[in-house]
Amino acid sequence: MKSLPLSEAYQLLEPGPVVLLTTAHKGRANVMTMSWHMMVEFEPPLVACIVSNANHSFAALRATGEAVIAVPARKLAAKVVKVGNSSGRDLDKFAAFGLTPLPAESVAPPLVKECFANLECKVVDRRMINRYNMFILEVRKAWIDPAQKNRKTIHHHGYGRFVVDGATIKLKSRMR
Amino acid sequence: MKSLPLSEAYQLLEPGPVVLLTTAHKGRANVMTMSWHMMVEFEPPLVACIVSNANHSFAALRATGEAVIAVPARKLAAKVVKVGNSSGRDLDKFAAFGLTPLPAESVAPPLVKECFANLECKVVDRRMINRYNMFILEVRKAWIDPAQKNRKTIHHHGYGRFVVDGATIKLKSRMR
Repeated sequence: MKSLPLSEAYQLLEPGPVVLLTTAHKGRANVMTMSWHMMVEFEPPLVACIVSNANHSFAALRATGEAVIAVPARKLAAKVVKVGNSSGRDLDKFAAFGLTPLPAESVAPPLVKECFANLECKVVDRRMINRYNMFILEVRKAWIDPAQKNRKTIHHHGYGRFVVDGATIKLKSRMR
Repeated sequence: MKSLPLSEAYQLLEPGPVVLLTTAHKGRANVMTMSWHMMVEFEPPLVACIVSNANHSFAALRATGEAVIAVPARKLAAKVVKVGNSSGRDLDKFAAFGLTPLPAESVAPPLVKECFANLECKVVDRRMINRYNMFILEVRKAWIDPAQKNRKTIHHHGYGRFVVDGATIKLKSRMR
């Protein structure tokens, strides 16, 4: 993994890919699938996300205030769905689905080796947790895997239907 | 436009497409381009979005509490970028870019005829506006255009680079 400038982190999440979210609590790491996230600020990068309190990860994220957002490419789609279909309550999902936890630099939750990007995050605002299960995360460190050339991501359309990134088009834009 | 069940509205926004946001203020409609949005709740559908206070639409959205989120397909990409590159301060963007405003049912801002889906929204939580320019919208009415068969959307990767929806894959998922 190679360090990515924090100012470029938004380019990974703004397009709306399905991501993995790792947490670590009481000596145990866990991973969930997440699609409800958005950028809030460019730099330092702030990300809002919804983690349902029905998810096992909710308690870990609230208690520790730390997470890693890992971005999987299309080749991981089957594993991503298995992660979403199971709970860390009764399963070590890393071992069960062949995902490799790697130590992060600034947080306890692990990076996911198989993902082409990993964002180390800290919870910086807890005011929307009770009402919306919404966490505001600040990205403290961003990693990109230069060895993964195919970075097509997947987008969830409901009930197991995913759209894979297609062609890239370039248009003259003043938008960042 | 045909009415879409509110319980299916999330399937339009969860995949992270670039959308248009219309507002109406002091007798004048406006439209902007938006990529920072996420689902917050399935039903009634709640959507969080960031509208920068540097945008002309910010004041209209804050003052009126109403907006329409319109979802453009790939064929509108060039217009979407033009909308993003200009400001309603000095331009009627509907007329300038050949977008057709249609009356909405429950809000003053118009639907966009050329978009394959339109979501009529009301602001239901203003507490994050000052800190994050974040609005929580409730979708009150959803429309889909059955005549538009090609609903491939575009996803912004920064600086005018967009990825178009590619192939759809189906995986056995318990996720809604």
